[in-house]
Amino acid sequence: MSKVQQIASAYSELQKKICRILEKADGKASFTEHTWEKEIGSGSTCVIQNGNVIEKGAVNYSFVQGEFTPQMGKLLGEKASHYAVTGISSIIHPVNPHVPIIHMNIRYFELDNKTVWFGGGIDLTPHFVDVAEAKAFHQQLKTMCDKYSAAFYPHFKEWADNYFFIPHRNETRGIGGIFFDRMKPDHTISFEELLRFTLELGNTYPKIYAEIMQKKSKLSFTEAEKKWQQIRRGRYVEFNLVYDRGTKFGLESNGNTESILVSLPANASWEFNYKVETDSPEYHTLQMLRKEIDWVNYTI
Amino acid sequence: MSKVQQIASAYSELQKKICRILEKADGKASFTEHTWEKEIGSGSTCVIQNGNVIEKGAVNYSFVQGEFTPQMGKLLGEKASHYAVTGISSIIHPVNPHVPIIHMNIRYFELDNKTVWFGGGIDLTPHFVDVAEAKAFHQQLKTMCDKYSAAFYPHFKEWADNYFFIPHRNETRGIGGIFFDRMKPDHTISFEELLRFTLELGNTYPKIYAEIMQKKSKLSFTEAEKKWQQIRRGRYVEFNLVYDRGTKFGLESNGNTESILVSLPANASWEFNYKVETDSPEYHTLQMLRKEIDWVNYTI
Repeated sequence: MSKVQQIASAYSELQKKICRILEKADGKASFTEHTWEKEIGSGSTCVIQNGNVIEKGAVNYSFVQGEFTPQMGKLLGEKASHYAVTGISSIIHPVNPHVPIIHMNIRYFELDNKTVWFGGGIDLTPHFVDVAEAKAFHQQLKTMCDKYSAAFYPHFKEWADNYFFIPHRNETRGIGGIFFDRMKPDHTISFEELLRFTLELGNTYPKIYAEIMQKKSKLSFTEAEKKWQQIRRGRYVEFNLVYDRGTKFGLESNGNTESILVSLPANASWEFNYKVETDSPEYHTLQMLRKEIDWVNYTI
Repeated sequence: MSKVQQIASAYSELQKKICRILEKADGKASFTEHTWEKEIGSGSTCVIQNGNVIEKGAVNYSFVQGEFTPQMGKLLGEKASHYAVTGISSIIHPVNPHVPIIHMNIRYFELDNKTVWFGGGIDLTPHFVDVAEAKAFHQQLKTMCDKYSAAFYPHFKEWADNYFFIPHRNETRGIGGIFFDRMKPDHTISFEELLRFTLELGNTYPKIYAEIMQKKSKLSFTEAEKKWQQIRRGRYVEFNLVYDRGTKFGLESNGNTESILVSLPANASWEFNYKVETDSPEYHTLQMLRKEIDWVNYTI
């Protein structure tokens, strides 16, 4: 079995594990698996809907391969004739506006010229920024990253700030997290360590979210807070459709549309010139949607 | 006064006229004008909301100019140092799912190397395709086009089929209409005729829609039909954010975000693997969302 197949089966197992943990945390809804096969490969989209806590969520696994086209080569600055990629991506949209949206993905990419790399990330998109939650989230990520390299967290945190950003709104998608791409094994980190890092990220993800769900999902909320959630979901749609590279690459490469767009919320709103009241919780949230906040050392 | 200023003021007047006609047809809500000024120019966004018929609609007018960058030059295959563009764009999202979404835009583009062109289009996006309505709509456009050139309608209709298409869904946005771009005056058509053509399109637009509003807005509808409308609005959002060139160009060129994204519906839904019942009206609508339907000669 080649490396990509081994990793694909480890990721596939991890997908199921993530689903079990999230299902348990929700306590009502369960995941339904939809497998798909296309010319470029196959995958499994596990979807959960109308739960106690989760309104709509998915954990995608896929393993695709094909010709490494000159266009891809130019884009990635690599020469090869065949590629294979396997990964997991997941997004959860909660019912309660006090529970944040979460996203996580990991992937392994292999070329037939022996080039390999890992990529991935995790980020939290609160409808209402909770400073303690943001600080704890970033601290958990830092602790995890530090086990592999002291350079990881600061580097990947900055990468996330820049990646999860909506230029036309001049705001970040949420409070960020970590993002990394094209991490190749070298003298500072081995292939096995990078693989373990992505697996640990995948394993940590549902635990982090289960904790947040438990803390927040019983909070009461108003119609106005629900409305604000709809507006923020609109921004999430804007980010995913206009900027997200995974979404764009997926749609352009004739991927499985339903699995790619399962990341979109069950519903979203847009209102012209939506204004928030000064000093309202919505106002304070907007103040926090910016890059370069040092969440780990943030003084509450 | 240069040509672009003359045309800008004609378009600005036309914007107000369109608003008056649509307002009258709605009978309840009225347009609110929001003017804006940025480094690249200025504009006016007239927004109507929560009407009898119109849930959310806008008529945008803008006049922008600036440096014709090498990047623009490469994209358009033109050499110049300064550009100016003025135009109107409008989208209406109705309350009633039996009333279609409509979109229209016209624009005039001028370079300081004396190159000028016109562009624009109109298209109808029914949530439920009504064959008689689609046929009448295309017949009205053909009659209008034929006054200028017999070549216009077939050419612009095909252009619309190709432009208002969602590749990742393999469906057209709606039943099409006409689309044209970079129409330069030549031996077959004069500058004045092209200008008159865009003005006639802008004038015809609210009349066409007022007629449809009158016919359809009193029809009763069910919860399920409203749900379907939300799903179709989701597709409209996908088209606008992923493919629409005006939206992309606007966001990339640091345009006025609120005016650009006022085209998005007040709300939209996404459901994983949404299926329609065979032989249902939704099913028949999906069958009609394809290119190359000869609506004018369609036998009902």
